[in-house]
Amino acid sequence: MTVSTGMPHPVHHTPGGVPTHWYNVVADLAGYVPQERRPAQRAGSHALRPQLPLSIYRQSVSNEPFIDIPAEVRAEYERWRPTPLVRAHRLERMLRTPARIYYKYEGASPSGSHKLNSAIAQAYYYKKAGVRELVTGTGAGQWGTALAMACTAYDMACTVFMVRCSYDQKPQRRLLMELNGARVIPSPSVTTKAGTSIVADDPECAGSLSVASSEAHEYANEGDGVRYSAGSGDNHVLLHQTVIGQEALAQLEALGDYPDTVVAALGAGSNFAGLTMPFYRDSVTTGRRARLVAVEPKSCPKLTRGVYTWDHHDALGNTPMSKMYTLGHRFIPSPIHAGGLRYHGAAPVISWMYHEGLVDAVAYGQRAVFEAGAAFARAEQVIPAPESAHAIRHVIDRAERARETNTPETILFNLSGHGLMDLGSYEKWMQGLLEEDSVADAEVERALASLSRPAGE
Amino acid sequence: MTVSTGMPHPVHHTPGGVPTHWYNVVADLAGYVPQERRPAQRAGSHALRPQLPLSIYRQSVSNEPFIDIPAEVRAEYERWRPTPLVRAHRLERMLRTPARIYYKYEGASPSGSHKLNSAIAQAYYYKKAGVRELVTGTGAGQWGTALAMACTAYDMACTVFMVRCSYDQKPQRRLLMELNGARVIPSPSVTTKAGTSIVADDPECAGSLSVASSEAHEYANEGDGVRYSAGSGDNHVLLHQTVIGQEALAQLEALGDYPDTVVAALGAGSNFAGLTMPFYRDSVTTGRRARLVAVEPKSCPKLTRGVYTWDHHDALGNTPMSKMYTLGHRFIPSPIHAGGLRYHGAAPVISWMYHEGLVDAVAYGQRAVFEAGAAFARAEQVIPAPESAHAIRHVIDRAERARETNTPETILFNLSGHGLMDLGSYEKWMQGLLEEDSVADAEVERALASLSRPAGE
Repeated sequence: MTVSTGMPHPVHHTPGGVPTHWYNVVADLAGYVPQERRPAQRAGSHALRPQLPLSIYRQSVSNEPFIDIPAEVRAEYERWRPTPLVRAHRLERMLRTPARIYYKYEGASPSGSHKLNSAIAQAYYYKKAGVRELVTGTGAGQWGTALAMACTAYDMACTVFMVRCSYDQKPQRRLLMELNGARVIPSPSVTTKAGTSIVADDPECAGSLSVASSEAHEYANEGDGVRYSAGSGDNHVLLHQTVIGQEALAQLEALGDYPDTVVAALGAGSNFAGLTMPFYRDSVTTGRRARLVAVEPKSCPKLTRGVYTWDHHDALGNTPMSKMYTLGHRFIPSPIHAGGLRYHGAAPVISWMYHEGLVDAVAYGQRAVFEAGAAFARAEQVIPAPESAHAIRHVIDRAERARETNTPETILFNLSGHGLMDLGSYEKWMQGLLEEDSVADAEVERALASLSRPAGE
Repeated sequence: MTVSTGMPHPVHHTPGGVPTHWYNVVADLAGYVPQERRPAQRAGSHALRPQLPLSIYRQSVSNEPFIDIPAEVRAEYERWRPTPLVRAHRLERMLRTPARIYYKYEGASPSGSHKLNSAIAQAYYYKKAGVRELVTGTGAGQWGTALAMACTAYDMACTVFMVRCSYDQKPQRRLLMELNGARVIPSPSVTTKAGTSIVADDPECAGSLSVASSEAHEYANEGDGVRYSAGSGDNHVLLHQTVIGQEALAQLEALGDYPDTVVAALGAGSNFAGLTMPFYRDSVTTGRRARLVAVEPKSCPKLTRGVYTWDHHDALGNTPMSKMYTLGHRFIPSPIHAGGLRYHGAAPVISWMYHEGLVDAVAYGQRAVFEAGAAFARAEQVIPAPESAHAIRHVIDRAERARETNTPETILFNLSGHGLMDLGSYEKWMQGLLEEDSVADAEVERALASLSRPAGE
């Protein structure tokens, strides 16, 4: 099923410990063919022009296992990388578990999450390609914040369509983007035709990443020198995030340890792929094998309850289709507090790996997730972003099982961001006001039924 | 005026770069005699029992220049220390200045500010002395957060009297303390006699650090196994913070640089002393001399407009008196957004040094301060706490002067905390809604006139 692409390629690190290459898992997935199908031009729909500069496009279709990180991007990374790898001794003691728990702390970045790894790289390439403004959609605001910072660094304008329920839940996130020079528009908005049509259908629409993405694509399509920048899902974004896992591998090696299980939350997949794919590479080249577990919210369970089929990346169906696990591009998840996970589909490459049994998935409700996040905060004095708290929920469950069965296990997870902008959500949880989130079977059925089938399927 | 206490004492660092000793500036200040006068017992006032365990008391009156950091405390420090020393290249470019600007980033600590350096040390000593609960007052919440985290680490209870205007301005700060297990009470409260008497005088009282301190002292005095823990001002707190400056000195040396000017905001003095005192030591032992500048808010200008006299540390005058620069212990500053600087007096040792001309001081209004903080955030992608933004205001002024006069200058400042809990204040500034703060001469006169003179003065 999977083959090595040859000799193990030693990943080099700078003396400071920052990787010199990104790792492209596609090179190690025999049988996976990245492809997309362009949508039929429908009345009133937009034919999107290509958004990627050639430099990024080449990365997104590359079959090379390792791709050079430009020196300029590495210099930016060195402002905050390598991020700490921390043994969660206190959490272990609190759980009285024989498990060894490590976390990779991406919240140490200037933007407060892993998202800056790709934002900096993309801004660098777009700037070189002569682009003057980047536009995107953001859920919790982690990606929007990162892109705003990256655009400031490369002297580009930045516009962010922010999912309306997050815009309302997290006014401080908006401010952080504005302080970094970005224009922030709540989505669905009446700024775009896409948003206007969605508001017409549902004036109370909470928004979703797929809707924000439709709006941002339309905005990019109509502006001069404006391009859409993706925060997750696409191959090149997954690629840029692999600095996380490469560092973690080296840091664990320095400690003489190796994980049995590697855990990360999954929105579209960049956080998950960033940590886990270098461990996949390691399994291909050395035979050591870690279990790779994606954690998703019960209210947006694309891997655990979606289907593997062709679908669009945006709510209006204007973007090309990819084969992926999806709940249907019209699926609008309940307004849970982990806004970064409210996306209907999983990255095509992660979807393929899940389909092939190379990665596992599990889903949790948000009350259980916040309980885990608060326990972690008490033990380790770091407030996790609600997205990251999904991973923590699973880690704690495994650690408790390890205690009950008295089986040691080494667990590594991605603490992808801090939750200092999410204290309002924690307060709701503390007060017992947090709604439980799930989604009825009928609703999933309905969403999946609405999937348009492309010609030839 | 000042003499060396002998041979330069090389400060050792652990292999990881964390100092092994705290530096006690008192040892290098010939002529300074730490002393206090106990207040006459007045009707209805409290005779406070000693709050310090012997271990801390010894530190607070020590004449040794270097005091061992216990291995347990160093192990805690190593969780986040050494903190980064960063060259602010982008700020320099933005200002087109020939000045070289460095900042020591204490916001990288788990609590988000320098305060954890002393909180961890104090919790360690109090725990060893059998104390089961610590109580304190906090302004912006930086100290309260740090103490809450430290108490969790040492399994002690924690109660925080939080200045009411900060409690209202920063609900997220309160939450952060609560998530870390602390009980948070807005001050003035009706929980204590001190608070009740102040509320009776002024039901709208915004509170101040001095009022919160009165309440916390009373609470400590009446509880069993409860002690008051000070976040600034006292010698031992200044001492614990000197890890900052010792690290900065070593980090700059590694870069082959040395500051002409070292800048830090001053509330009571621990942030200022933490960065600058090791440079003072360096001037005594090597003759290199950096200008040490304390920056205070115009609305609480104890150094630049206060008097050098005997005064209490708390609003009700129950604590012993020290000789210090003060605006009078009954002075209640306007509710500015840098809550950590709203304290009527300066640390006795810093006051003495200011009086002797060994440190400089300057004051700014909060609009100018937020403007500087926002400019820094845009340039460097770190939102400074409003307290730290005071230092930045002065740094930018110096850097602009360096440009105008074409005189290179090396400036180091303490970025004592991040401002992610203060985005609401930045929003007010962005919207032009931030009140200018200052204090009328008559108000200072009135506050100073109310200073009670101790017997024998």
